[in-house]
Amino acid sequence: MATNDLFLRALRREPVERPPVWMMRQAGRYLPEYRAVRAKADFLTMCRTPELATEVTLQPVDLIGVDAAIIFSDILVIPDAMGMDLTVDEGVGPQFSDPVRTMRDLVRLSDVEPEEGLRYHLDALRMTRRALDGRVPLIGFAGSPWTLFAYMTEGKGTKSFSIAKKLLFADPEFAHALLARLADNVGRFLVAQAAAGAQALQLFDSWAGSLGPREYREFALPYMARAARIAKTAGVPVIAFAPGAGWALGEIAEATGCDVLGVDWHTDAAWARGVADTRRCGIQGNLDPCTLYAAPEVIRERTQAMLAAIDGPGYIANLGHGILPDVPVAHAKAFIETVQAWDSRGAMAAAQSAEMTR
Amino acid sequence: MATNDLFLRALRREPVERPPVWMMRQAGRYLPEYRAVRAKADFLTMCRTPELATEVTLQPVDLIGVDAAIIFSDILVIPDAMGMDLTVDEGVGPQFSDPVRTMRDLVRLSDVEPEEGLRYHLDALRMTRRALDGRVPLIGFAGSPWTLFAYMTEGKGTKSFSIAKKLLFADPEFAHALLARLADNVGRFLVAQAAAGAQALQLFDSWAGSLGPREYREFALPYMARAARIAKTAGVPVIAFAPGAGWALGEIAEATGCDVLGVDWHTDAAWARGVADTRRCGIQGNLDPCTLYAAPEVIRERTQAMLAAIDGPGYIANLGHGILPDVPVAHAKAFIETVQAWDSRGAMAAAQSAEMTR
Repeated sequence: MATNDLFLRALRREPVERPPVWMMRQAGRYLPEYRAVRAKADFLTMCRTPELATEVTLQPVDLIGVDAAIIFSDILVIPDAMGMDLTVDEGVGPQFSDPVRTMRDLVRLSDVEPEEGLRYHLDALRMTRRALDGRVPLIGFAGSPWTLFAYMTEGKGTKSFSIAKKLLFADPEFAHALLARLADNVGRFLVAQAAAGAQALQLFDSWAGSLGPREYREFALPYMARAARIAKTAGVPVIAFAPGAGWALGEIAEATGCDVLGVDWHTDAAWARGVADTRRCGIQGNLDPCTLYAAPEVIRERTQAMLAAIDGPGYIANLGHGILPDVPVAHAKAFIETVQAWDSRGAMAAAQSAEMTR
Repeated sequence: MATNDLFLRALRREPVERPPVWMMRQAGRYLPEYRAVRAKADFLTMCRTPELATEVTLQPVDLIGVDAAIIFSDILVIPDAMGMDLTVDEGVGPQFSDPVRTMRDLVRLSDVEPEEGLRYHLDALRMTRRALDGRVPLIGFAGSPWTLFAYMTEGKGTKSFSIAKKLLFADPEFAHALLARLADNVGRFLVAQAAAGAQALQLFDSWAGSLGPREYREFALPYMARAARIAKTAGVPVIAFAPGAGWALGEIAEATGCDVLGVDWHTDAAWARGVADTRRCGIQGNLDPCTLYAAPEVIRERTQAMLAAIDGPGYIANLGHGILPDVPVAHAKAFIETVQAWDSRGAMAAAQSAEMTR
């Protein structure tokens, strides 16, 4: 079995023949094989059953040929393990019956010992790593504190975030206390994932875009940074993804010390490349997932335009958000194959000559 | 009755003692007096009954002391007048029973003669203008084509915009045809609003943030610009607001020829001030509406921080999005009063001396 280490080399900003490529939510509903597993088990059962999590984690590797696997799980497993009762109902999405909104509520939460409360997630990593047998690297992940805070205080998904944001303005002391506690639990969880076999760790601050610059800098970025700094002690590369906060890419690289910046599809690809070069870090993204609704020839053209703008040292091709459930598999393949047919030598040579003239 | 022309002077970038201030959605649910009217009539009946629209349009002028009134209406009155059947149900939001998704569907739409299909809106402007009697200026508005396109193709509000965006990628010819038609109808509607007494016109591209840079530049900005250029023929200042596309502020000023750039709360206030000065246009915004959940002393501090960063020629204070329905009235007043107590002479002097040293 050949070993594909493109992803690991890109994480280290080493030269690659072409960019590695994977897709956020690549183990997902657009795959009939995923839906077949999902028909037998609900979402949380899939997360909590290492055999099932392993099975769907491997699907995009086998079926689509992506260059990295990401463990099948959910960002809300941490608050669940801290004692909040997570449910995920069809059509309703994730919910916590008893949201956390006061200092008194904090007492209800327990800190997580990952090998106890999140053992199923770590077992799934171990099982997947064995099953992959080196074919492609395996990514672990966690939600970033602000995003977890938003779910835990709202009790469910929201468009306005009015409960979570009201707390930031009305009770910042509580907000900082909960965020600090989350950062430490997230950091420890990521370290445990590296120990269980994850070869890279991604932090998802999915709701970063719900905050303006001042609140982002006070309540989101410092806690993503705290979690990332703890994760980095595991000696595994960290990818920091804060969709909706593209304006802050430079600050995110600085604060978190991340190896790779995730870039959402709102962000100009060429501009993001400039930030990555200035900060000497890698960069991952950022095709608009809706592009995969287009005909395959349009997907190829848009993907090549993105590659021309963003390819260079430390580049990992991806979508700028999770793949949508109603995308045809052939369209996902058109994206993957376009990246895999791309020749990075031009981008690498350009970077090298820029380096030499510096 | 004193005439408050601060807003008109700011629109012309003339010196003002302090910034004019109003709030998007200021005639809204946070006011008990609004809820009292709403208890008697549903939302669309309020829009379509000039006496009721006038009554709620005046409420924030009388109750909160804002420096401009904006006519009570909805951005979706245009597709409704073009022949789509708009309903707005409690808890569900606006819906069109028969979305427009193909070239064939375009035939069903008729172009709007504003004094016929949107006469109620124009009558409300005339009635409000008389009732205001010069106390404060009156703003008219319309939805920008991309936002109307999104509602008309989805049939309702959405988080993913997957239907609307799929059309952009899969059938760009249809998309351009519908957007062009919308731009012309929006432009004519704005001209009619100026003729009916509107002293400024705001274009809302509420879903601008659902597009990445390339699609924004192809499908949203050119049609906002087309509508704005038509509106400008009425000789009344135009405010262009594209929340979620703060990165494009400079391009928006250039393409639309707008007098004032609306700025959302995601956007750094000091950076937006720089764009406005470079482009020699006005600027409106941008306090995060969630700030009004904070205690009044925090609202004052945040408002002053915003003013220190953004005040200058052509500045109009506002929120960076509509006021939220569960904000206490006293908190809205704290925001308004903080702006009204601000002295702009420092900002104006700084702008003048920057001008002279240029």
